[in-house]
Amino acid sequence: MKPVIYLDNNATTRVAPEVLEEMLPYFSEYYGNPSSMHTFGGMLGKKVVEAREKLADLINADPGEIIFTSCGTESDNTAIYAALRSNPQKRHIITTRVEHPAVKNLYEHLAKNGYRVTWVPVDRKGNLDVEYLYDHISDNTAIASIMWANNETGVIFPVEKIAHALKEKGVLFHTDAVQAVGKIPVDVKKAGVDMLSLSGHKFHAPKGVGALYVKKGTKFAPFMIGGHQEKGRRGGTENVAAIIGLGKAAEMAKSDMVDEMQRVRMLRDRLENHILDTVPNTLLNGVRENRLPNTLSVSFEYVEGESILLMLDQLGICASSGSACTSGTLEPSHVLRALGVPFTAAHGSIRFSLSHYNTQEEIDYLCGHIPRLIERLREMSPFWKQAASCSTQ
Amino acid sequence: MKPVIYLDNNATTRVAPEVLEEMLPYFSEYYGNPSSMHTFGGMLGKKVVEAREKLADLINADPGEIIFTSCGTESDNTAIYAALRSNPQKRHIITTRVEHPAVKNLYEHLAKNGYRVTWVPVDRKGNLDVEYLYDHISDNTAIASIMWANNETGVIFPVEKIAHALKEKGVLFHTDAVQAVGKIPVDVKKAGVDMLSLSGHKFHAPKGVGALYVKKGTKFAPFMIGGHQEKGRRGGTENVAAIIGLGKAAEMAKSDMVDEMQRVRMLRDRLENHILDTVPNTLLNGVRENRLPNTLSVSFEYVEGESILLMLDQLGICASSGSACTSGTLEPSHVLRALGVPFTAAHGSIRFSLSHYNTQEEIDYLCGHIPRLIERLREMSPFWKQAASCSTQ
Repeated sequence: MKPVIYLDNNATTRVAPEVLEEMLPYFSEYYGNPSSMHTFGGMLGKKVVEAREKLADLINADPGEIIFTSCGTESDNTAIYAALRSNPQKRHIITTRVEHPAVKNLYEHLAKNGYRVTWVPVDRKGNLDVEYLYDHISDNTAIASIMWANNETGVIFPVEKIAHALKEKGVLFHTDAVQAVGKIPVDVKKAGVDMLSLSGHKFHAPKGVGALYVKKGTKFAPFMIGGHQEKGRRGGTENVAAIIGLGKAAEMAKSDMVDEMQRVRMLRDRLENHILDTVPNTLLNGVRENRLPNTLSVSFEYVEGESILLMLDQLGICASSGSACTSGTLEPSHVLRALGVPFTAAHGSIRFSLSHYNTQEEIDYLCGHIPRLIERLREMSPFWKQAASCSTQ
Repeated sequence: MKPVIYLDNNATTRVAPEVLEEMLPYFSEYYGNPSSMHTFGGMLGKKVVEAREKLADLINADPGEIIFTSCGTESDNTAIYAALRSNPQKRHIITTRVEHPAVKNLYEHLAKNGYRVTWVPVDRKGNLDVEYLYDHISDNTAIASIMWANNETGVIFPVEKIAHALKEKGVLFHTDAVQAVGKIPVDVKKAGVDMLSLSGHKFHAPKGVGALYVKKGTKFAPFMIGGHQEKGRRGGTENVAAIIGLGKAAEMAKSDMVDEMQRVRMLRDRLENHILDTVPNTLLNGVRENRLPNTLSVSFEYVEGESILLMLDQLGICASSGSACTSGTLEPSHVLRALGVPFTAAHGSIRFSLSHYNTQEEIDYLCGHIPRLIERLREMSPFWKQAASCSTQ
């Protein structure tokens, strides 16, 4: 397969070669089980400890506050069920209208099973209505799950402020930080969150490993019940190689976070400005400033996102319409609908999400093609012709 | 680290180099998300389809009946919760006294949460009391979880017979086949089970991937709620590389199952006979015949299993006392207690579990050392001296 320009890093990322290198000996060479009593297995326990320390360091947690899981979805499910099982008398839960399906679909499931759910709205720019959130907290609220940053728009929520308000009312605060960790500084102590979900494959660790931060002293009940692993908080043999990879990815993310944010933001802004300047009838989804530096969600009016993706694909450019988790449907994503993106624009929404591996040459290649690409699609679009004729009348 | 003689394959196995080779391109080269619309991601969907077919082929399932999970524990949890959520009116569940913690601990948790649990006993040889099982089935029984083969003794349960009896009474049958799949022929259609759990790292696939077989038509509710992956039956980005590895391991296991069983059984029997013939006061745990060909659980009376493991470790030999999942405690495992292994023997129990990679040279090396090793430990044991003096009086 020819090389691609991969601009779909919020869906998944390349495993950093340095990460893979660290993982490699732990498949066929040092393949023991950390729970074993022999040296060959036991030594892997130390590697897991090291990885836990590195990951804890990235988010300013204590290593004992980290539970390794198999993915972000498991981390989210674990956090939410832990809160509910620890507070069985409380039957009200709070989340937002723009969460990832791992939170949204679980809350919908709970809504059908005896829980009252408050869905906090966002405005046209993707900002959370925090006053609405505050107004709906009650003594009956078991947990609030509010994401750190949105996977489609990149909009960052005011986690610290929310944490403060929830703490005052004694409500557990869980944040899905899957899109934030590794991309922007995340400090659990400063933010004051009780539980935080993260996923390795969103920042150059492999798929199949995630983690849940649980603040010391937080009441907890395991989701995956089995052996004594993770101090009885998550059964199942530790995914040693992937955990080692997650530790390395965390170390790498921490070491060049500031420079990388700046570099990636510069590339993203270059792309964004080019599109908004050269392609008519385009809208930026989400606020401009308080946003993940790697994410750009843009709506091209009167064209289909799927058609854009197809033509980008022919150019070897990978992007996404809505999130990967909702692709395959023709409906605009629930996030764009929550923002109130007009119908004619929501259908033509594309998310570009960058990473460490993107170069200016790649962005310039895309910039060079996108205006003509959109123009060609619009030439074929009956809606565009209609809109154009209306605007000239 | 010097090479080891790894005889702890029921805890975890070496990833076959052929498996690792198949996986390798899917970390840093073809790293897309199968849910993505672009070719780079979408082509991974085909690889997942292929892996699903290979795994289905190993257990004679239809590919659509396979749900990929992160491990055996998740498969077990998924199966059990699926049965309970699909039959909410039924409050009785059945399992055995010798299940893996992934089943045992979940059933104990359910026992504290409104479910009545029947624990089916085993006899001194590890055989299941199937009459006891049959006698306890009721109209209120939601599920029976009966393992295919025991992880400590290797004893194989009469799954086909049990399936027949449960089917007659309309009870869902889930089997934890984590220790069976890849080691002995497993045919879900012939066996007639409704759900079957398996784990990759027990047969030379990597850690971090497992699967659940769910017979077509079985009522199902997801455990991990998130995106649309696995046809909505398991949320979370597919662990592509590990799934590809699982497919390859399944293919390899199927291709030389018969020869390998014979070869491994010959080695295991060589070790078993040598120990029983040359070391006095040793007991075989479990039946001799109807047992996994790779597993040997043997009790050395009047010595501590931990001391034996330590001395084996110094010789570079990896084994286990009880299961890895219960190690770290000084209690004999629940399996040996369920068998009624006498106290003086249960504490000196060692499990040797072989794999494809063990050689006759390795077994002969162990055979050459074990009699003297046990003798030395007994020389230091006050219980042994006491027992010896009693027997001479």
